[in-house]
Amino acid sequence: MGTKRIPQATTKRLPLYYRFLRNYADAGVQRISSSELSEAMKIDAATIRRDFSHFGALGRKGYGYDVDSLLQFFRETLDQDEETNVALIGVGSLGNAFLKYNFQKIHNTKIVVAFDPKAPYDGEERNHIPIYPPDRLEEKILELGIEMVILTVPKRVAQELTDRLAQTGVKGILNFTPERLAVPDTIRIQSIDLSGELQTLIYLIKNDVKDSQMN
Amino acid sequence: MGTKRIPQATTKRLPLYYRFLRNYADAGVQRISSSELSEAMKIDAATIRRDFSHFGALGRKGYGYDVDSLLQFFRETLDQDEETNVALIGVGSLGNAFLKYNFQKIHNTKIVVAFDPKAPYDGEERNHIPIYPPDRLEEKILELGIEMVILTVPKRVAQELTDRLAQTGVKGILNFTPERLAVPDTIRIQSIDLSGELQTLIYLIKNDVKDSQMN
Repeated sequence: MGTKRIPQATTKRLPLYYRFLRNYADAGVQRISSSELSEAMKIDAATIRRDFSHFGALGRKGYGYDVDSLLQFFRETLDQDEETNVALIGVGSLGNAFLKYNFQKIHNTKIVVAFDPKAPYDGEERNHIPIYPPDRLEEKILELGIEMVILTVPKRVAQELTDRLAQTGVKGILNFTPERLAVPDTIRIQSIDLSGELQTLIYLIKNDVKDSQMN
Repeated sequence: MGTKRIPQATTKRLPLYYRFLRNYADAGVQRISSSELSEAMKIDAATIRRDFSHFGALGRKGYGYDVDSLLQFFRETLDQDEETNVALIGVGSLGNAFLKYNFQKIHNTKIVVAFDPKAPYDGEERNHIPIYPPDRLEEKILELGIEMVILTVPKRVAQELTDRLAQTGVKGILNFTPERLAVPDTIRIQSIDLSGELQTLIYLIKNDVKDSQMN
């Protein structure tokens, strides 16, 4: 197959494309034009077309791009990345689910260490992953060269831990706490608010109900 | 305080506003104008300003809206909804986390029943929630008047279960499988791809690294 040569600038936009396309797919959109994406994403349409051509995706005139095919391509591309060791901070119910699942479907991306206040100083293993107390956070993150962290801790300690992570080599935080975290420019953060997702969906369906009752 | 009277049409846009604003907040954006939101969301700027005024949010000329304040308001509004019983389908590691957590911070929204192939026909309890085998899905969903479902099953059974849900009164599915699910118009679906979120964030930070090495 050989390695595809994709410009860095294009690569950087890939996750954003992926996110927007997933939203469109959820909304049942099957095809999308570069100008529609351009408006939604605030990226020049010509840039989008050039980016997509690097992925081998050529939009058809008057049709646009097939959303599913693009998503499939992006998924494969995102999965070809180099090896990444991830730290899990907080082994409560959600953290435990991550430990068990440990992204088995993704190549080269694994949780290799976890932190939890209940763990003994010398660490303990769960699902073959060592868990240490938060005291040893900086030490272990430096030792293992961790750049990516999943944060599933109680809201009240989220900012404090983030401040400590900012002093290490961590570059990305996947934040599952409802807290809006302040980070320096060196850290990228992505937040997933599971309760918020559930609530917004409930809100939508409840209001659909009311509408149909009123008509 | 009294109940705020918010038009249905405005209410329906609330989850969408919430999602966009969370993305902006993650990107470190502190204020946003109605015209910027308008471009990104493809909603008329005047409509946005009118919607926000119903929430008591008045943008300041030349400043726009404060992203954090809007988010806080939306969170509170979304939490004032009527009681909603939720069914959890699939009690693997992620499903188990939902059972344990059960959205304790949200009022009036609770998982009241779960389904898993390992459960006995007469059901068993975990965290005070009955778990039944999938055989009894339709029966229990009708009996409990469930409209909202969280789907955490293996990809291969996701569409089949969705088809069965479409025959019940279910109106919303929060989909944690990587499968793109086909649903009738009567069902709204929102997908959360946890592996995808992790991968896109890793992609971003890896490419930042390369950029700085090249400069």
